[in-house]
Amino acid sequence: MSFTHELELRVRYAETDQMGVVYHTNYLVWCEIGRTELIRALTGASYADLEARGVGLAVSELSIRYHGAARYDNRILVRTTLAEARSRSVTFDYLISNAQSNERLASARTVLVSLDEHGKPVTMPVDLRSLLAEAQAKA
Amino acid sequence: MSFTHELELRVRYAETDQMGVVYHTNYLVWCEIGRTELIRALTGASYADLEARGVGLAVSELSIRYHGAARYDNRILVRTTLAEARSRSVTFDYLISNAQSNERLASARTVLVSLDEHGKPVTMPVDLRSLLAEAQAKA
Amino acid sequence: MSFTHELELRVRYAETDQMGVVYHTNYLVWCEIGRTELIRALTGASYADLEARGVGLAVSELSIRYHGAARYDNRILVRTTLAEARSRSVTFDYLISNAQSNERLASARTVLVSLDEHGKPVTMPVDLRSLLAEAQAKA
Amino acid sequence: MSFTHELELRVRYAETDQMGVVYHTNYLVWCEIGRTELIRALTGASYADLEARGVGLAVSELSIRYHGAARYDNRILVRTTLAEARSRSVTFDYLISNAQSNERLASARTVLVSLDEHGKPVTMPVDLRSLLAEAQAKA
Repeated sequence: MSFTHELELRVRYAETDQMGVVYHTNYLVWCEIGRTELIRALTGASYADLEARGVGLAVSELSIRYHGAARYDNRILVRTTLAEARSRSVTFDYLISNAQSNERLASARTVLVSLDEHGKPVTMPVDLRSLLAEAQAKA
Repeated sequence: MSFTHELELRVRYAETDQMGVVYHTNYLVWCEIGRTELIRALTGASYADLEARGVGLAVSELSIRYHGAARYDNRILVRTTLAEARSRSVTFDYLISNAQSNERLASARTVLVSLDEHGKPVTMPVDLRSLLAEAQAKA
Repeated sequence: MSFTHELELRVRYAETDQMGVVYHTNYLVWCEIGRTELIRALTGASYADLEARGVGLAVSELSIRYHGAARYDNRILVRTTLAEARSRSVTFDYLISNAQSNERLASARTVLVSLDEHGKPVTMPVDLRSLLAEAQAKA
Repeated sequence: MSFTHELELRVRYAETDQMGVVYHTNYLVWCEIGRTELIRALTGASYADLEARGVGLAVSELSIRYHGAARYDNRILVRTTLAEARSRSVTFDYLISNAQSNERLASARTVLVSLDEHGKPVTMPVDLRSLLAEAQAKA
């Protein structure tokens, strides 16, 4: 269990574009994998389990700055940090870097809101909230 | 209403890869747009309406041959033909070409099966079947 | 020629996710189509021409807020506005809405920087800069 | 070094569609990762190295049959087999299954042709050819 979670992935050919680098929106897919794995590490449950209980986390806002370019076959490090946990929203920060050179590639932030099966904002399940609160307190 | 349907689209930057051409799986996304628009032209209803009635069409097999390369910003012509309509499956053929040069880029075939909301194979709704059968008879 | 450019597109099945709505990064692909078409409308040239002259525009930062959900087969309106043109960067704002209901779905901003073939920041070609400056002055 | 290569990956949220399963073209992205890793295991070099030497492998034809559905967060096993190595083309077979349940999800075949930097068919580099031939002989 950790407040910051790290994962490594390898750039897929499908993720590149004709500029010879990773197409810019794919970094945000990596962020999603980062927060999924942070939640799994933190709660012992998957985001899929959460959805099965009728709770979804939808991105309500995001921002990203690109500092360098990821390229095909690069090993990428995604560091995801739980920045803020509230009853209906949770904010994650991300630092994406090249795992070999340590070059910083992008920094991002996403705010997610808790939605029920009909897309209405709801408070997060108590067990998830307390785990998030606990993790945040450790910072 | 037509047995063969034509649509034009423009290649998106996001669809390219570092070889400087369209990533190969994106032609299959275009095929999907082709069959969706053929169904709309044929039935006056959208595939979304079909799903709302609890019927999905899932790809059960596909094949594609690549003859040339589509590039960023090219205008692409997708010709979709209803090849065979059966009670539980429907087969479409596709010819993808460069709309300006007429260069043939890819030819593909997909077989789709009719599934209910639980993913079980079912016969297609009678109205869709009769429209497909009628269209096929005109060939 | 216009300072704000509008385009309409239809949501592809491939753009949805299992929440039943458009996957959040795909709105950013639509933004890219928006700025490409604004540049075409403004300059009479395509972004592909620009790249052929050895100049690329790379996203250096972006932010987006989601207000509502786009769904499969929806017709989407993308309004792209040239917010600021500088010698080495250009900023665009986007408003994405449902073209039928007029529901506002997302608002975004991207900053792009001008890069040469080796990925080094360069000033934009004079002709592009003057067209951008002219368009901005009309605001 | 192995004639058949196995890799495991986890389904990303971005890979699902509104049917609640993996969008059908994403299995073909997994196939690409499969053959990339087979080539790395076989040659000790990456496909990126190959491209750096001016040789690309482009998909010239592919076919896939879907037997079951992959779902979000599933662990997926991709078994890639070198089916045939020729001077200008190489054929791979793929078996994609659920790594937990062993359910067979898809079987596919791709034919790739060797292209130079200008997109012209060329014979593959001698060292790659001999490694592929050797691997095939072990079958």
